[in-house]
Amino acid sequence: MRYPNGRIYQKQQRTKTRIAEPSFANRGQTLEQQIEEANEYYLEKELAVIHKKPVPIQIVNVHYPARSAARITEAYFKTPSTTDFNGIWNGLHIDFEAKETKNKTSFPLANIHPHQVEHMGRVARQNGVVFFIFKFATLSRYFLFFYEDFEPFWTRMLQGGRKSITLSEVENNSYELQVSAYPELHYLPIIEQYMNEKER
Amino acid sequence: MRYPNGRIYQKQQRTKTRIAEPSFANRGQTLEQQIEEANEYYLEKELAVIHKKPVPIQIVNVHYPARSAARITEAYFKTPSTTDFNGIWNGLHIDFEAKETKNKTSFPLANIHPHQVEHMGRVARQNGVVFFIFKFATLSRYFLFFYEDFEPFWTRMLQGGRKSITLSEVENNSYELQVSAYPELHYLPIIEQYMNEKER
Repeated sequence: MRYPNGRIYQKQQRTKTRIAEPSFANRGQTLEQQIEEANEYYLEKELAVIHKKPVPIQIVNVHYPARSAARITEAYFKTPSTTDFNGIWNGLHIDFEAKETKNKTSFPLANIHPHQVEHMGRVARQNGVVFFIFKFATLSRYFLFFYEDFEPFWTRMLQGGRKSITLSEVENNSYELQVSAYPELHYLPIIEQYMNEKER
Repeated sequence: MRYPNGRIYQKQQRTKTRIAEPSFANRGQTLEQQIEEANEYYLEKELAVIHKKPVPIQIVNVHYPARSAARITEAYFKTPSTTDFNGIWNGLHIDFEAKETKNKTSFPLANIHPHQVEHMGRVARQNGVVFFIFKFATLSRYFLFFYEDFEPFWTRMLQGGRKSITLSEVENNSYELQVSAYPELHYLPIIEQYMNEKER
């Protein structure tokens, strides 16, 4: 695992020692809820402006009753062509996708859409900060996997290799995110640390 | 009006002299379609990655027929709390809202949601590039109105002043965008020019 070593991390580690008891990982939130909680916190504190994009919907029929709100009566879910979350932090464009698995030994790539990965590549080439948040739900472990570190594993799959990333590969190529009290998934410090390491 | 004066503009002006005949302004596209056309062009050319966000929907009922796609049978439109478009260009976070009016003498502020303006302020404070694209549909004129130049007019309204921005105020405080052949609304050069002028 690539251990954090900056100023930010020390702060995290201290926090972790104090609060990362199993109880905190168990408020029963989904990964999406955990991220939305962090985003609301960032918005309130003016730390960042990051939102989940609405689910894309193909609207087929809308009913307009007099004197009341338009009602959509037929619509279908569309496959997303971009990532779930984006926004801005400190002048940097942030773009990421959240995925969870119940698997304990590897992260399957099957539920990642090729269109999403293409989108992430495009944003990375425009110098955005692009990553996945992977959650191993059964293990209660979370990782920020930056696109440039993720891409070789995706390419390996496209070239006929394994269709997942083993837990130890995840540990060695991404940043583990420790659960805190509030927000549970305080992921901005990891981005800051990543940017600092990149600059060196 | 703040006339463009950089390298980029000369290119635009040449183009404009050659092609900005009234016919080009009349392919009958809505402002949203014109922006989407530009965004597709930017995506294909790898110039920028800018998408329209899906319309936010409150889903109430979904029907899951066996062997076919889930069908949403009851849903409602939600008021957007952010802007319509965002993305990245050359490392910069881009965030904007598109509005059109049939009015010929001023741009009404009534159909701009306070939540959207608050969102724009937040993004501007994180050093995003934030603006409106205003279309005077009847006049076939388009303006990029950057948030920092727009904000005083919004404040004027909040303080009891006029609920619109006059055409000449728009001309004097924003950047006029000339229609080209394809994409009709090639707005990136205006952003580049704005950034160059800001640096000076």
